[in-house]
Amino acid sequence: MPRSATNLDPHGDAPRERREAILVAAAQVISRSGVRGLRVEQVAAEAKVSPPLLYYHFASRQGLIRAALERASERAPSAALRQAPAKGETGYAALRTALLAELDEDREVRDNAVVWGEVSASAVFDSELRDDVRRVSAAWSAEVAGAVQRGIEDSSIRSDVDPDRAGQLLTALVDGLCNRWLAGGIDREAARSLLEAALKQTLRAPNG
Amino acid sequence: MPRSATNLDPHGDAPRERREAILVAAAQVISRSGVRGLRVEQVAAEAKVSPPLLYYHFASRQGLIRAALERASERAPSAALRQAPAKGETGYAALRTALLAELDEDREVRDNAVVWGEVSASAVFDSELRDDVRRVSAAWSAEVAGAVQRGIEDSSIRSDVDPDRAGQLLTALVDGLCNRWLAGGIDREAARSLLEAALKQTLRAPNG
Repeated sequence: MPRSATNLDPHGDAPRERREAILVAAAQVISRSGVRGLRVEQVAAEAKVSPPLLYYHFASRQGLIRAALERASERAPSAALRQAPAKGETGYAALRTALLAELDEDREVRDNAVVWGEVSASAVFDSELRDDVRRVSAAWSAEVAGAVQRGIEDSSIRSDVDPDRAGQLLTALVDGLCNRWLAGGIDREAARSLLEAALKQTLRAPNG
Repeated sequence: MPRSATNLDPHGDAPRERREAILVAAAQVISRSGVRGLRVEQVAAEAKVSPPLLYYHFASRQGLIRAALERASERAPSAALRQAPAKGETGYAALRTALLAELDEDREVRDNAVVWGEVSASAVFDSELRDDVRRVSAAWSAEVAGAVQRGIEDSSIRSDVDPDRAGQLLTALVDGLCNRWLAGGIDREAARSLLEAALKQTLRAPNG
């Protein structure tokens, strides 16, 4: 549906699609050269929009980076845990599938993982970004905690597991494995195997 | 002992001390503004040396960054695991002390953690750095694996634990917790508490 944004938009696409194209380009630029090398003009060029249109949608370079983090979080494999579970799927199975999928060769998953790692690393030096990282980390941990809670209720996860602490622990572990994989410190398959074993040990009954 | 380097060194300090002063300054600059914001001239100014003296010691900006990673690794709390264990200290106790100390407020520990996180994050975009990250990660995992092996031998760690896999898992977990702490995503005390519980669950007997 046309809105005022279309005044700036010679392509005539809906603003939502333009916005999405800019965020896809931002993820690709970040994945290739990092947050700190990101130039707004380059993202605009790759999204085939003018810099003023980009600024119309995101207000500033910082706004673009924050929106890229938000999108990486929404599209991460773990976001599937926000949906109602598939029929017959246990909480443990849903969690295992979602977290192992974070270590996937798929181009978009990898781009999102790099965006997340990059924005987190930048937040060490940028107090504004720290609020976003805290919020997105907490949301991710809460999604994992929710799946753990479902697993306790359907008996696929041990009843003595604390869902909130398990959520924090497992997301930090996925981050650590993911960053090491992206940095070349460990093979993807080795990282997946370690994560799988850690999930079993943290969540399953001894005979599980 | 004077060497040819002293020709370049108006302070007359031993080359080793000059080199160390440069690396201390590099860690501080990286801790304040990141690897990617690092300017060689700024490091030289903070170390009170001339840029040519810095290049004498490290050849290039990349050489300086790699040496900063090496030093962060050598001075990390886990490096204590390379030493002979304290008399009467179990493998588990040594490991617990060393890994929890990675999450310490101490200025130098924090600087080293930022250097390590930054160089790892930069390695995603820099294939030359990936070899260094792989080597330093492998060395750290091996130190942890060695402590696990000692713990199995002194019965402070379960005999069914695989030392190499435990080394990889625990160092990735420490990385993930450390990065989240530095990025403001979790309190340091909460991160320590999660690590302590994970160590117990991964390594100790059920009644340990």
